[in-house]
Amino acid sequence: MIGIILFGGTGSIGKQTLEIINNKEYKLLAFTFNNNISSAKQIIQEYKPFVVGISNINHQEELLSCDKNINIVLNNQVNDIIEYDYSKHLNLEKILYINALSGSAGLYPTYEIINHGHDLLLANKESLVMAGKIIMDLARTKNVNIIPIDSEHSGLQKILLGKDKKDVNSLIITASGGALRDYKIEDLRSVTASDALKHPNWLMGKDITINCATMMNKGYEVIEACHLFNMDIDKVKVLVHKESIIHALVEFNDGTIEANLGTADMRNPISFAVNYPHFKDNNLSKLDLIKVASLNFKELDLNRYPCFNLAIKAYKLGGYYPTILNAANEAAVKLFLNNEINYLDIYHIVNNMLNKHNNYLITKEELSIENIIKLDREIQNDVLKFKKGCEQ
Amino acid sequence: MIGIILFGGTGSIGKQTLEIINNKEYKLLAFTFNNNISSAKQIIQEYKPFVVGISNINHQEELLSCDKNINIVLNNQVNDIIEYDYSKHLNLEKILYINALSGSAGLYPTYEIINHGHDLLLANKESLVMAGKIIMDLARTKNVNIIPIDSEHSGLQKILLGKDKKDVNSLIITASGGALRDYKIEDLRSVTASDALKHPNWLMGKDITINCATMMNKGYEVIEACHLFNMDIDKVKVLVHKESIIHALVEFNDGTIEANLGTADMRNPISFAVNYPHFKDNNLSKLDLIKVASLNFKELDLNRYPCFNLAIKAYKLGGYYPTILNAANEAAVKLFLNNEINYLDIYHIVNNMLNKHNNYLITKEELSIENIIKLDREIQNDVLKFKKGCEQ
Repeated sequence: MIGIILFGGTGSIGKQTLEIINNKEYKLLAFTFNNNISSAKQIIQEYKPFVVGISNINHQEELLSCDKNINIVLNNQVNDIIEYDYSKHLNLEKILYINALSGSAGLYPTYEIINHGHDLLLANKESLVMAGKIIMDLARTKNVNIIPIDSEHSGLQKILLGKDKKDVNSLIITASGGALRDYKIEDLRSVTASDALKHPNWLMGKDITINCATMMNKGYEVIEACHLFNMDIDKVKVLVHKESIIHALVEFNDGTIEANLGTADMRNPISFAVNYPHFKDNNLSKLDLIKVASLNFKELDLNRYPCFNLAIKAYKLGGYYPTILNAANEAAVKLFLNNEINYLDIYHIVNNMLNKHNNYLITKEELSIENIIKLDREIQNDVLKFKKGCEQ
Repeated sequence: MIGIILFGGTGSIGKQTLEIINNKEYKLLAFTFNNNISSAKQIIQEYKPFVVGISNINHQEELLSCDKNINIVLNNQVNDIIEYDYSKHLNLEKILYINALSGSAGLYPTYEIINHGHDLLLANKESLVMAGKIIMDLARTKNVNIIPIDSEHSGLQKILLGKDKKDVNSLIITASGGALRDYKIEDLRSVTASDALKHPNWLMGKDITINCATMMNKGYEVIEACHLFNMDIDKVKVLVHKESIIHALVEFNDGTIEANLGTADMRNPISFAVNYPHFKDNNLSKLDLIKVASLNFKELDLNRYPCFNLAIKAYKLGGYYPTILNAANEAAVKLFLNNEINYLDIYHIVNNMLNKHNNYLITKEELSIENIIKLDREIQNDVLKFKKGCEQ
């Protein structure tokens, strides 16, 4: 029996993870959630975990009415969830720690799971954007594997299995172009949240879907790839591929390429992470290239996606800049989803915050997880004060 | 210094191999050729090998006039080439044995190289079509690696490096469709050798280019893949892909796919074989997917390519059938290239020979390399008696 501890059980990745582990091999030991109490109650009824992590103390009573024996802890008490003695309930071959949280909330669990010496199945790319150097250094010190739950990085990890790193010239991740790829650039000014949420290929959470439209997400993924695979940012490229069938490619020194292909289904990378390093059949629909018929590629149009450049710039500046980038974007996307700012304001807000906070260009030695978490809150609070029109 | 022994130095693969090894790391120790004396003389002058294998004893004097110290042996004295003491001339880190011969002439060198316990870089797919079981059994007994010089199988080998065989569901090789892919089926009756030699993507020898037009080559490659990767034939599929950019794909048990991509340049698989298991930069042109722009796939139309079916049928029948298949096709292609039969006769001749020789359905225990070589000659001689129109 393989135990699962799932940070973020009610979100998009959380739900899809539960679909993958819904068989006798796995037991959900613990999960956390934020606001979605009805989904949380369903999970408790169906999977009977031993521990649940909550954000809102008022949810406690309702959950206990669902299962009076369940142990309830606060989400910020990550260690209580990790250190709980699950072996008193059942024999476990191993425990998989999955971080399926969205946004900066995922950083602290990422840090603590690795700090406890556990391998991490990581869907929360923001952990690596905000604090990639600290996280990867810690993972090396603790001899911990990070298995990405992100279609591009899962694809890269698959391709690189058993390959000699010295043979690799560059990594390429693909981008669909997002919901607004066919809009005229001049029409982007007036798009609504509902327009930007219509992703052509992927079913994902709202924040990441907006980040796909702006391509901030692809910038994050470039940063994620640099950290995960210890690559120079100039060796991580983006290729626009509207079908989202090829997720990642590795270019070798001889100029040949290996590509990872699959249906646009987040359960593919989840399944691989859970079964790493094996490609287990999980009854997901198989890719049929005859049906797909055609795969297309084009260059990334940086004029259309200025947020992508901000991400690259922030990574190159280093220090706390990627933290500022992520915090500003996360808060700006929240405002956009609430119709409090325009689509193009997302870029302007993030750009302004990066320019404004150049006093945070602290040397890398001073980087600390505490400072990063503190800075994230400051920036987000700062941005949340903006209202429509303020930025232009 | 790495020594090279090259069977088939003046053919298409031979010449391209010499381009790849044309640097200080390598030394051409020996090569063989059949008729192309002028190319052979050039190779001797440029690479100064110690041994040359010839088919025609009359060439001896001319070659000695080129280099009076060169050791000349007859091509059928394969062991003299393999067993020659090259170390008396120079210090060698290792010797690479490359079989770049075309057609059934390649079988005996393949057998002897492996029988001597040497790893084999194999461009001669006919060795595996004619005698795959014997060759692979011998390779296992002698603990010898066979590294294919065939774009599809090189691609498969690259993808499978470091992968667990148990995770593999199926192998897929691509087919461009050959020179006649856009002809109406009813027009195939009247195509000439010169039409069928116009391969849209690859620069190769004449025989293989005709085999691409008929897709006999793709049938051979399915057989080759079965032997090299120990796969059931039902797990080796063909996908029509007109651009010849994706050469091979591996479908894993989870339904995701890994693909090998590269320019349509035989020097890519040659380079990988020579540097196996590394992907060394050999200054070949790199694949640029933005320029490629689009990759297309469709199902194999078996009505257009009946020779493909013959290959699959012969493999499934087993025993000496694949030998008959290869011999009949090799001789028929010779007749076609000499304008002695029509294009469609190639199929009819091979089909008739398979039907006629059902007395050769000897049990697998009786398979021997001597019988295979003898049968190959008989069948080829038999077919070469055909003249235009006889078959219809």
